[in-house]
Formats: sequence, C-alpha cells, structure tokens
Amino acid sequence: MRVVALAGGVGGAKLAHGLQQVLAPGELTVVVNTGDDLEVHGLPVCPDGDTVLYTLAGVANPSTGWGMADETWAVMGQLGRLGEPTWFALGDRDIATHLFRLARLRAGRRPTEVSLELSRALGVAARILPMADRPVRTQVRTTDGWLAFQEYFVHRHQEPEVHETRFDGIDAAAATPEVADALAAAELIVLCPSNPFVSIAPILAVPGIRAGLQGARRRGVRVVAVSPIVGGKALKGPADRMLASLGKDVSALGVAREYRGLVDLFVLDRVDAGLLPEVRALGMQAAATDTIMTDDAGRARLAADLLRLAAAG
Amino acid sequence: MRVVALAGGVGGAKLAHGLQQVLAPGELTVVVNTGDDLEVHGLPVCPDGDTVLYTLAGVANPSTGWGMADETWAVMGQLGRLGEPTWFALGDRDIATHLFRLARLRAGRRPTEVSLELSRALGVAARILPMADRPVRTQVRTTDGWLAFQEYFVHRHQEPEVHETRFDGIDAAAATPEVADALAAAELIVLCPSNPFVSIAPILAVPGIRAGLQGARRRGVRVVAVSPIVGGKALKGPADRMLASLGKDVSALGVAREYRGLVDLFVLDRVDAGLLPEVRALGMQAAATDTIMTDDAGRARLAADLLRLAAAG
Repeated sequence: MRVVALAGGVGGAKLAHGLQQVLAPGELTVVVNTGDDLEVHGLPVCPDGDTVLYTLAGVANPSTGWGMADETWAVMGQLGRLGEPTWFALGDRDIATHLFRLARLRAGRRPTEVSLELSRALGVAARILPMADRPVRTQVRTTDGWLAFQEYFVHRHQEPEVHETRFDGIDAAAATPEVADALAAAELIVLCPSNPFVSIAPILAVPGIRAGLQGARRRGVRVVAVSPIVGGKALKGPADRMLASLGKDVSALGVAREYRGLVDLFVLDRVDAGLLPEVRALGMQAAATDTIMTDDAGRARLAADLLRLAAAG
Repeated sequence: MRVVALAGGVGGAKLAHGLQQVLAPGELTVVVNTGDDLEVHGLPVCPDGDTVLYTLAGVANPSTGWGMADETWAVMGQLGRLGEPTWFALGDRDIATHLFRLARLRAGRRPTEVSLELSRALGVAARILPMADRPVRTQVRTTDGWLAFQEYFVHRHQEPEVHETRFDGIDAAAATPEVADALAAAELIVLCPSNPFVSIAPILAVPGIRAGLQGARRRGVRVVAVSPIVGGKALKGPADRMLASLGKDVSALGVAREYRGLVDLFVLDRVDAGLLPEVRALGMQAAATDTIMTDDAGRARLAADLLRLAAAG
C-alpha cells in the first residue's frame, strides 16, 4: 500500500519509522516540514527533515529528540572558543550531514534531490521529501514579538507564548513534482502526530499540497490524522501550550478541529476515548488506540493499527 | 619596524612566526597566497592562510604542516560513511575555522575582513591578509594535464611533473585596500622561504602588488627574500622538483633568478654560501645564515638575522 505521511519532528519521525517497518520498501513517502529549516554557521540545517532521516536510518539520538546517536562535539567546542554562538548545538556526525547537503546545494541540486541522496547514503528505505524546494520560514508572534521558529523553539526554550504563526516564503513555494507525484499515487495519507500549527500547517499551506490531498480524497483515498495531544498534554514540544495561547481546546478535540474538512479518520489515544463523540460531530470518523510509541515495536504497532483502521473504513 | 611578509604555507608560516616573535604587536602584516584556496564539502578552505593563522596562533599541528594540533576526525569519518571523498582531510577543530569563515562570507563580508576576525578570535598579534578578495585559483600543467592545485598537491601527492603554472582569476583580482596600505606603510618587505612558483608568484601576480613592492623600493624600503631551497632540496613541498621540471637550476641560485629585479637582498643557507657570488652577479645583495627553523627559537633567530642583515644594507 502506497502511503504518504506528513511529518514534523519527533512524533512524526516515530510514526514514519513505524510505517517504514510495516510497509514494503518503496511504499512509504514522508513529506517533511521545512518551515523550521535554518542556517547555522553557514550550514543548511533541516531540523525536522534530519530527525525523520536519522530516525528512519536508525541512527537518531534516542534521548534528545534531535541529532545522532553516539555524537561528539569537537567542532562546536572550537566554535565556542572562537566566540561563535553555540545555542544551536550541532554534533560532529550531524555536521557531516549538513556538509553533504551544503556541497550539493552549492552545486545547484534541489533540496529534494539532496534529501533523496541523503536517504540513500544512510540506507533509508522510505522516500523523504521536503515539503517544498523554495525556502519557507516559520515565524511565531509571541509575547516577545515575532521570532524565527528556532529562536523561539531552541534559543528561548519555547517559553514565550505563541499568539500567531506565519510562514514566510509560502506564496513563492510550491509542491515539488516529487510531492505531487507521491500524492497522486497515494493509497493512504497520514497526518503524523506532529504539532498542527508549526509542523503540519506549513506543509498544508504549500501551494498545491492541500489540493493534492483533496484530489486524493476525491479518488477515494482516505486521510488519517493521529493526535499529538494525549490526555491534554503534548508528548513532546509546545503543541499543548500553543493550543492554549491560540485560544483552542487543549485536547485531541482541539487538534481535530484544526483538521476539519480535510481528514476522514481522526485517531486519538485510548485515554481520550471520551472525546470520540465530539470528534465525530466535526464530520470525521474517529477511533481510539494506543498512540504512545515507547519503542520500535510500539511504532510498528501504531502504524499497523492505522492501516487496519483506515482499511476498516 | 613595520614589516610586510609575503608567505605561502609551512616555510612562510614559520618565518612569519619568527617575525611575530621579534616585532612589536601590530608591526607585522603577512600577505598570504590564496591561489591554493578551494571548496571542500562546500566549505571555503584556505590552506596557506590557515597554516599561517594556526602557526601564528601557536595551534598548528607540529608534524603535518597543515591543520591544528590535537585534532579529532569525527566529521570526516562520517563523511566517509556517507560516501563522500575524503582525500582532503579536515579535522573537527579545523572545520570550525571554515564554518566561522563560511558564515561570514555568506553574510557578505570580504575574505580580508574574515581573515582579520579569525586572527583576533585566535589571539594572533600579526595582521594576516589574503593577497586578494576575489578568488584566484592556481592551476598546474602536468604530465597528467592541467590540474587544480590541491588536486596536484594533495590528491596526487605532487607526483605529476609540473611544466607550467597559471593563476585563474588573477586579472579580475586586485590588491585590497589593506594590502595596498600595508605595502605603502612598510619599512621592510620579506619574501618568505615559500615556493617561488606557486606561493610567491601568485601573490606578486595580483594586479597592484608588484607595483606596491616597486613603489616601496623607490622609497628606499628593502625587499629581502629567503631561499626555500637548501643544499638543492626543498625543506617541504615540491619546490625542488618544480625547479627541475620547469628547466631551472635546482638550487638557491635558481630561486634567486626568479626574483631578479625585485629583490634587494637574497638570503640563503650557510650550506649554499658557495652560491653567493653567482647570486650577487644577478644584481642583488646576498648573505648566508642558518635558515633552517627547527623550533620557535630558530624561527625568531632567522627573523632577527633578516632584520639585522636588511639594516646592514
């Protein structure tokens, strides 16, 4: 079954890894948010894309949610001695990824081509596609004013309240041929348990992607979303605090409302099964299962559940 | 005494370090060859400039002639696992230098500005100036055809014979305001014991630099050169083999001939004192001293000798 998953960072990467485990090689395409991308010490860094890449390659740091396992920090240490800012930590092996990308971008390759090359170099079975080749930069309006996403997320530890989001460059971006082809060939589309406002929303805002989803739905392809909020809390990141500061329900229901009109089946955790009637009242199907992925087997189990629930119609 | 030293890599860096030891802070300006510069994994690498930088900062690798002391190789190891070419070795701490440079060049700073910032960050007393801000790329015509300099020097281990050199981009390059000012203020100019064909020649070929030297000479400033050939051998690198394959005398005399009309005083090693009359016959003064710099004290001693010999007129 050809599956397209839309993903941000950690939660999206885990479910993508589950899907990669249960699908045949070549069946999974992951479209990743690039709104978090940034330049660090001149290097093109793709936090969400790299988290997905490392997770699918089995080399992700198991505890941080970013970076590679078994890292060393020699480059960063020396940059600090040179007086450079070090709040955005890049491990030595991670820097090799960014140099691989830098060299190819400078040679004129598209980000999509580089992403596919990186996936091959790390032995990843799935296709990982940036949501767009043109740069999109998520900005958040906070109590401290407008901030670039990583300034808010990493440098200020997600402490300022978010009141608005904006995706700079989105009008000039477009679904790439690879993303458009994947959506056109999809038999199932999954919105991963990622932040709806700063991970999934920028992907859907890329001109052509929402239309691609709707086109797939008209062909009978189902769009399934998994809630990143469990028991009113985000498993990782600031999604719960954003729901609150944006004036939404801090719950799986609040997430489901964001996906109204786009999603056929909304999957939430068993602990939130009480919300199922209200989610269904939004005009979508709903189901509860165990959505917490504590290990590789847990990721595969949730992926298998999704395929089963989607097939059940 | 304000001294401007023209330098390539190892030999030039050693003498520059000697001069830095015997001069007051701010008195030494080193103009470095950029013809060896190249892009490695998208990083702007300046082999000669970095060797001078690291040597003057006291952090150079004492055995290799390139790179930093106490290096680790995590980035390079991972690049190799990603299938990238690794013949141009970059240590982790060294990569921090190139990232410092990359970020600033991307922000629009001139190479000269970045070089001065790097010198400050590493606590170097001397001013290190690239010979030009516009890129110049040395090419050598060898038995294997035209090769970019580092392809010849590092990748092919200087094995092909060199029959011709060329400095791509030299016509569009120009002496920077900083280099022009340094030459205009110089009280002594030193051609370091670097390769005359691929280290000193590209510097002299930058439009404005040779004229700057001649202008200084007309003001009574002396230009002193030190032979990189001792007893018919280059202490480091392929200068001796290039002299041979270019049809020149493989000796300090062969080097002196390259500097005819430009140099007031040619300094060679005591072992070559027998060549003094022939060098003088070229129309320049000549002197012999111990030119082999085996340690920091040896570098300072040669520098002090040069100042004394130059002052002796």
